[in-house]
Amino acid sequence: MDVYNAIKNRRSIRKYRSTPIPEEKLKNILNAARLAPSAKNLQPWKFIIVRDEEIKRKLIPACNNQKFIAEAPIIIAGCALEDECFTYMGGYTSSYPVDLGIAVTHLTLAAASEGLGTCWIGSFKEEKVKEVLGIPNNVRVVGLTPVGYPDEKPERRPRKNPDEIVCYDKYK
Amino acid sequence: MDVYNAIKNRRSIRKYRSTPIPEEKLKNILNAARLAPSAKNLQPWKFIIVRDEEIKRKLIPACNNQKFIAEAPIIIAGCALEDECFTYMGGYTSSYPVDLGIAVTHLTLAAASEGLGTCWIGSFKEEKVKEVLGIPNNVRVVGLTPVGYPDEKPERRPRKNPDEIVCYDKYK
Repeated sequence: MDVYNAIKNRRSIRKYRSTPIPEEKLKNILNAARLAPSAKNLQPWKFIIVRDEEIKRKLIPACNNQKFIAEAPIIIAGCALEDECFTYMGGYTSSYPVDLGIAVTHLTLAAASEGLGTCWIGSFKEEKVKEVLGIPNNVRVVGLTPVGYPDEKPERRPRKNPDEIVCYDKYK
Repeated sequence: MDVYNAIKNRRSIRKYRSTPIPEEKLKNILNAARLAPSAKNLQPWKFIIVRDEEIKRKLIPACNNQKFIAEAPIIIAGCALEDECFTYMGGYTSSYPVDLGIAVTHLTLAAASEGLGTCWIGSFKEEKVKEVLGIPNNVRVVGLTPVGYPDEKPERRPRKNPDEIVCYDKYK
């Protein structure tokens, strides 16, 4: 699928069919994440593919009771290896949230082009997710997403106008 | 261009032609950023399009003397409205670095599909960039990228193997 169509057609999907995801499609979207750029090409990421029904169910309370996540055949947790990232981005911060933002975006757009739905989950309790998935101390959970065939066709949500978000040469 | 081709063909470009970017292409890539998802759809972003030659030159020292950035006809600074983002992502952090990571990734993939090169700049001094671009206190600079027609064809850089970055059901 064309990049612009993937960008325009992608929606945050909160209703999924239980139909399994073909292995080939899963492999393709994970490879899209793998090819993402990252600060100093450090690739400080790990993707946990949760398919086990019981573990998926345990993620519901860890994700502030968003029950729909467990309807999807898989949930992917995007994790960051905090000790392996560039720690001085902009001279003030660690690169890992941006690195994961890039990689998961590759994955979500690839998924859209495969006819699969995703939904960034930012509302979760990191400590609980780490407990459920056995994630060590020095690894951060940046975001999760269910992945599966959509069972809804939501309208596009509103966006700011271009002139609100773009300016030229100086901040305005 | 197909999503997977954009992902596979995108490179970090460090050599640019001075050829101007057609307005239509610039509009398209900014619109790709505009359509990005963000935590709670807050869209906490502002993109500064730097075209002025003198301002571009002033960004060089602010970006730790990466001279190539000013060769490109434009440099885009991806900024975050810190007060307008979701402040409790994962229960522990602000969403803006991830939000900007998503939006700038839409832009870089759209650029690749337009035949334009980009290069995430994470090595910069935020305070200096803010001074050059007149960015207020409560706005963060998350990353910059030059945008222009590539004047090099770099090889793909190495990536980790899939089995290093993917695991199933539990962290491994």
